[in-house]
Amino acid sequence: MQSKTLQELAALVGGKVIGDDTLTIHGASTLDKAGPGQITFFSNKKYLPQVKTTRASVVIAAEPIESSAALLIAEDPYYAFMQIVVSLHGHRRHPSTGISSQASIDKTAQLGAGCNVHPFVSISENAILGKNCQIYSGVFIGPNVKIGDDCIVYPNTVIYDGTLIGSRVIIQSNASIGQDGFGFATHKGVHHKIPQIGRVVLEDDVEIGSGCAIERGTLDDTIIGKGSKIGDSVAIGHGTKIGPHCLLVPQVGVAGSATLGHHVVLGGQVGVVGHIKVGNLVKVGAKAGVVNDVPDGATIVGTPAIDASIARRAYSLIEYLPDMKKKIKELERKLEKLDQPGE
Amino acid sequence: MQSKTLQELAALVGGKVIGDDTLTIHGASTLDKAGPGQITFFSNKKYLPQVKTTRASVVIAAEPIESSAALLIAEDPYYAFMQIVVSLHGHRRHPSTGISSQASIDKTAQLGAGCNVHPFVSISENAILGKNCQIYSGVFIGPNVKIGDDCIVYPNTVIYDGTLIGSRVIIQSNASIGQDGFGFATHKGVHHKIPQIGRVVLEDDVEIGSGCAIERGTLDDTIIGKGSKIGDSVAIGHGTKIGPHCLLVPQVGVAGSATLGHHVVLGGQVGVVGHIKVGNLVKVGAKAGVVNDVPDGATIVGTPAIDASIARRAYSLIEYLPDMKKKIKELERKLEKLDQPGE
Amino acid sequence: MQSKTLQELAALVGGKVIGDDTLTIHGASTLDKAGPGQITFFSNKKYLPQVKTTRASVVIAAEPIESSAALLIAEDPYYAFMQIVVSLHGHRRHPSTGISSQASIDKTAQLGAGCNVHPFVSISENAILGKNCQIYSGVFIGPNVKIGDDCIVYPNTVIYDGTLIGSRVIIQSNASIGQDGFGFATHKGVHHKIPQIGRVVLEDDVEIGSGCAIERGTLDDTIIGKGSKIGDSVAIGHGTKIGPHCLLVPQVGVAGSATLGHHVVLGGQVGVVGHIKVGNLVKVGAKAGVVNDVPDGATIVGTPAIDASIARRAYSLIEYLPDMKKKIKELERKLEKLDQPGE
Repeated sequence: MQSKTLQELAALVGGKVIGDDTLTIHGASTLDKAGPGQITFFSNKKYLPQVKTTRASVVIAAEPIESSAALLIAEDPYYAFMQIVVSLHGHRRHPSTGISSQASIDKTAQLGAGCNVHPFVSISENAILGKNCQIYSGVFIGPNVKIGDDCIVYPNTVIYDGTLIGSRVIIQSNASIGQDGFGFATHKGVHHKIPQIGRVVLEDDVEIGSGCAIERGTLDDTIIGKGSKIGDSVAIGHGTKIGPHCLLVPQVGVAGSATLGHHVVLGGQVGVVGHIKVGNLVKVGAKAGVVNDVPDGATIVGTPAIDASIARRAYSLIEYLPDMKKKIKELERKLEKLDQPGE
Repeated sequence: MQSKTLQELAALVGGKVIGDDTLTIHGASTLDKAGPGQITFFSNKKYLPQVKTTRASVVIAAEPIESSAALLIAEDPYYAFMQIVVSLHGHRRHPSTGISSQASIDKTAQLGAGCNVHPFVSISENAILGKNCQIYSGVFIGPNVKIGDDCIVYPNTVIYDGTLIGSRVIIQSNASIGQDGFGFATHKGVHHKIPQIGRVVLEDDVEIGSGCAIERGTLDDTIIGKGSKIGDSVAIGHGTKIGPHCLLVPQVGVAGSATLGHHVVLGGQVGVVGHIKVGNLVKVGAKAGVVNDVPDGATIVGTPAIDASIARRAYSLIEYLPDMKKKIKELERKLEKLDQPGE
Repeated sequence: MQSKTLQELAALVGGKVIGDDTLTIHGASTLDKAGPGQITFFSNKKYLPQVKTTRASVVIAAEPIESSAALLIAEDPYYAFMQIVVSLHGHRRHPSTGISSQASIDKTAQLGAGCNVHPFVSISENAILGKNCQIYSGVFIGPNVKIGDDCIVYPNTVIYDGTLIGSRVIIQSNASIGQDGFGFATHKGVHHKIPQIGRVVLEDDVEIGSGCAIERGTLDDTIIGKGSKIGDSVAIGHGTKIGPHCLLVPQVGVAGSATLGHHVVLGGQVGVVGHIKVGNLVKVGAKAGVVNDVPDGATIVGTPAIDASIARRAYSLIEYLPDMKKKIKELERKLEKLDQPGE
């Protein structure tokens, strides 16, 4: 952890200070937890009241607001905050352990300079790792896997044979990459396993969460596009193509042979059925079930997922179904009475 | 496995016998599977017919009922049953293996007396374990992790740096505790990783299921409160606070910065969005999507989740929507006819 | 990879060629990716246009269709394709490594002839493995586990004590088999762990996906029936019985003490509550929530899950709820007016 003056931090993010720019900042925290010497940020209106009373020394905000703290005005407060947290705390440091004698590395495997390979790692035949990769304990790297430079693979993650991984890829713990797709030909009531001969391709700057399960393709590759970030416990089906710069929040499931464009955001527990096409810049609300192609730029929610502008109101009306049913019955009764005035 | 007389078991749980209390009981089973010499319990009305015909020697029940077996009357039959199963079968025994020479333990790590550390375990620098911990094969314990006494960590679980774990905590296999939260600052279409500097705190008597993914906090800690039990494959977001004595059933997802009170029960596959507050003693039905703050004591179901008293009927009426739509159309037609009698 | 003539492939699958049966085929791919020398198949009408223009040399189809490629007519095109992929590519080959000196194998464990045990595998006391099992790195096999012949257990999977596994069973990476069920007796607000004394039984020819969590039974066994295939990240509760030849797609959850018949298909993210009975040949659409017993042969969707013939239309009408509500209000207004014509 490092200390910086507010002036230095403002220069770092290209922001403007309202208040005392000689303050020394040594850490970052949330609006309600930050104390003197710490910086925080404001970007969710829900927390506006806390801005006024925060004990933080500095709040980063998009525009001047009333606050007990000095302000650092930055166009994109959360991005500025990210830069400052990196500057003060840095990312996780990886011990420079070299190649552990307790790892099992096939003699045909190639490791670039600066790799750290921890105990109980298995690296199989013809695997190739670039420079400066951090391979944590218990990781399995299968035959013919290719990994670029500066990748981090956290403990007990399993990378199956033939997986192709770019540079600066991060895979959190206990993930499975490239296991067999769920592919069976059912004949006379028996499910026959079909060899899964496609690969998984993780492009540059991808991050994969803990416990994810990314199936290899049956015939062509499963692809996670450049810069896409996949949360914990996400399951991706065989042959699915996730475009670049997507965000898939924890517990999302995307079935096989689906295609997602770029900058798609899938909320928590969203499910996408197989063989459909989700356009660019699509946003899908948490828990939605996507069953049809989705045009570029759409925001959808619900199961089945429909346009958010309609869906939010429509789904909230389910609560009134008993009432609606009763009213329809009443209307029917009254109308019947009117219809037969002679009785 | 031990044998006890029904009299001894009744004394153990403070219950009353109806029938022959000299019966010897050597095991426990379900109403339909139990045979002579075994004890079972009755607490779900659904199984009432089986009470009459069970081959078990003893049924534990809250009050006298007709049964082919002797009865053990106890106020809380399932709790009594639990005590008896513990007394007859006990919990899993852990072999007293000591510290395996095939484990990799940093020289700065401290292990309390009576710990068993299995092969292929990694314990990193400055990790501290209390007394009598069972650390199974392939577990990774990161730098500066602190674990209390009498904990059990099952194979291949990964505990990231700085995690704080109380006493008597059980973590089943392949869980991930303290991996990076899903935190990115998106700037000009690129997602920048924000260092996750909070920890995970698991308080005393917590149990975590297999394959869980508990993210560390971005800035402040992710906390699982004392005595809370988390089922398999549950994902908890960064900075979320789960109160004490909660039950989170398998496949639940709770997004970041949510707060749950005490004794909250979330059914299977429930999703809770981030930044909301779920009160004490709240019960959420399986598969519900919780999108707003929930008051203390509420029982909610559905997506969006609403009060159960309304929801059960409301959601079941979805089935009648085609019918309702048709009726509305008919009413419109009839009314139009009435309205224009002259035509 | 092997090459075969179209004639040879037709003989293999008992199909008929339309076109040049002397073509040499060396690989298999999808309709849009296949090139000369490759074979593909047509079974999903959605891809009909691609059949006309595919660059593949051969398309397998159920009946003659217009195509740029030669046709191989087979009754069940996907099954024929599976046989051909097996013939051309084969299933994954497993290196014949023998028993690694870096594995930890209890002296009481028994391994059949031809087993390959990779580094960092733990095999506990009294475990018994049949012939030709492939046990990949980091797998944990607990005490008294029994595994049949020709099984494959991929890296870092954990098999708890007492699990019984048939022959030809495949378990993908990072799965947990036999961890404690989520069973607690809550007494005065505290959750007491109940020993889980049942086992998990995986019958012959079962496949379990990566990251699955199959709980052991509380009292009787959790059973996955012969030939059933379980996708990634599926959670199965304690004491649940899955019949033979079922397909459970990724992220399905089945709660404890549920019973599924044979040939049940559960779509992605389906949830089944505990203690219910799902009949034979039932199909459940993706994301459905099954809350009641389901009769044999039913096809259901939605939450709550209802018959698909009704459900597809009913759930799609949620979108029109705002409109329906408005119409009901209008009807009420008009009717009131009619009712009080004197005003």
